[in-house]
Amino acid sequence: MQKTKLSEMDCPIARAFDRVGEWWSILILRDAFHGLTRFDQFQRSLSIAPNMLTRRLNALVADGLLEKRLYSAHPPRYEYILTQRGRDFRPVMIALMAWGNRYFSPEGAHSTLVDAHTGVEADPILVDRPSLRPLIEDDFTFAAGPAATEAVKRRMAFVARKRAKAAG
Amino acid sequence: MQKTKLSEMDCPIARAFDRVGEWWSILILRDAFHGLTRFDQFQRSLSIAPNMLTRRLNALVADGLLEKRLYSAHPPRYEYILTQRGRDFRPVMIALMAWGNRYFSPEGAHSTLVDAHTGVEADPILVDRPSLRPLIEDDFTFAAGPAATEAVKRRMAFVARKRAKAAG
Repeated sequence: MQKTKLSEMDCPIARAFDRVGEWWSILILRDAFHGLTRFDQFQRSLSIAPNMLTRRLNALVADGLLEKRLYSAHPPRYEYILTQRGRDFRPVMIALMAWGNRYFSPEGAHSTLVDAHTGVEADPILVDRPSLRPLIEDDFTFAAGPAATEAVKRRMAFVARKRAKAAG
Repeated sequence: MQKTKLSEMDCPIARAFDRVGEWWSILILRDAFHGLTRFDQFQRSLSIAPNMLTRRLNALVADGLLEKRLYSAHPPRYEYILTQRGRDFRPVMIALMAWGNRYFSPEGAHSTLVDAHTGVEADPILVDRPSLRPLIEDDFTFAAGPAATEAVKRRMAFVARKRAKAAG
């Protein structure tokens, strides 16, 4: 994975991906959402080399997605618990799962999200919280935020021109 | 990026991530959602080596996220357009952006999603389409799907035990 120049990192997608966009990291997070907490649980689940697992867990701790806690003093043993920041990654995980089930599971879904009480499968859709309107492309567009640099503003002006052109 | 054994790939998150979980791929997709289509546009945007860009674009075409179209015959020039499969990745992108803005933009958002008509910033939340109920952890849980293997079923039984324990 090659990291590019800092200016790119004005993008929230790039910044977010920088924390989770590694093959092992995303699988560790998935496992954490499944309730795994201990080093040996992750290792068994992922068949990952211990030094690699240590490195990825430490990175997730350093980025504030996991918290490392001592759960046994003799010998010292640690567990890794999702922080609020880590838990808030759940919508990304669910959206990724839904997309994966839709397009890359021709034999049917292996895992899915269900209503915990009824067991009925959920149909995840992204909406705007106050209005509950679906965030479809026709109605919602990317735009410069309050901290946008000139480069981001130019990009978003391009997005607006493209939309206007597409709308005829 | 190391790919693990096939059994892992029963997971829809792993399958989905396998198609987009590369630093360049996610930035190319972001650019495509911004309306970029041409090779030279992606190259300028990403400052990426041409051979690397060719490789990533071809992978996205092979995975069915982008469609390659001739837009000039002399000399031959191609553009890359999001397919339906590619467009349906948008919720993942938006969820990733929202999480990035929330946790990794201390100076404020550089880019964001807004109502195309009013310019008001959206507040993305994942809900269940028929009921519009938020997909929060208390109400919605991961579970085995119809095509679950024994390994996935064991994993989801673990998830259920963990939930029951946490609920007391």
